[in-house]
Amino acid sequence: MKSNYIVCYDITNEKRLKKVFKTLSGIGTHIQYSVFFCKLAWPELTELKEKLKDIIDGNEDDIRIYPLPSRSKFVALGQGDRVPEGVEIFL
Amino acid sequence: MKSNYIVCYDITNEKRLKKVFKTLSGIGTHIQYSVFFCKLAWPELTELKEKLKDIIDGNEDDIRIYPLPSRSKFVALGQGDRVPEGVEIFL
Repeated sequence: MKSNYIVCYDITNEKRLKKVFKTLSGIGTHIQYSVFFCKLAWPELTELKEKLKDIIDGNEDDIRIYPLPSRSKFVALGQGDRVPEGVEIFL
Repeated sequence: MKSNYIVCYDITNEKRLKKVFKTLSGIGTHIQYSVFFCKLAWPELTELKEKLKDIIDGNEDDIRIYPLPSRSKFVALGQGDRVPEGVEIFL
């Protein structure tokens, strides 16, 4: 079973930022500047965590993976045009 | 009853960014560069949305408010030291 997650990242180094972006692009939807939406089964989440840990500098970078409720709704204010499939916007 | 939310923002203008940051600082915890954690009752969420709408430029800025499950857990990789009260980290 897959769950919905938001991945938010603060990466201080350009090279590491590109690697994080590439890794996340492979499994999720880029919905805000430093935010991805991912639909992951538990093993996929575990694998993603390992991959990201290998890329980042633990003393400088900060990545958070927030689980969303199964029926993911969120508020979008402004020009939030990138909305992942299966996610509703409530205003 | 209060629910947990993550607020992620991409604000292109310095002046508006400061206003958004100030508004969110009043009601939430700044946990990542452009991410706040907020515990809000529904009327508070409605009020926050109105305040933020008044600040941003709808054509340039992008704010998302993601509801979190009641028992909020999230993964923190790297130097994620700002963890809001009542939120657990799972590794």
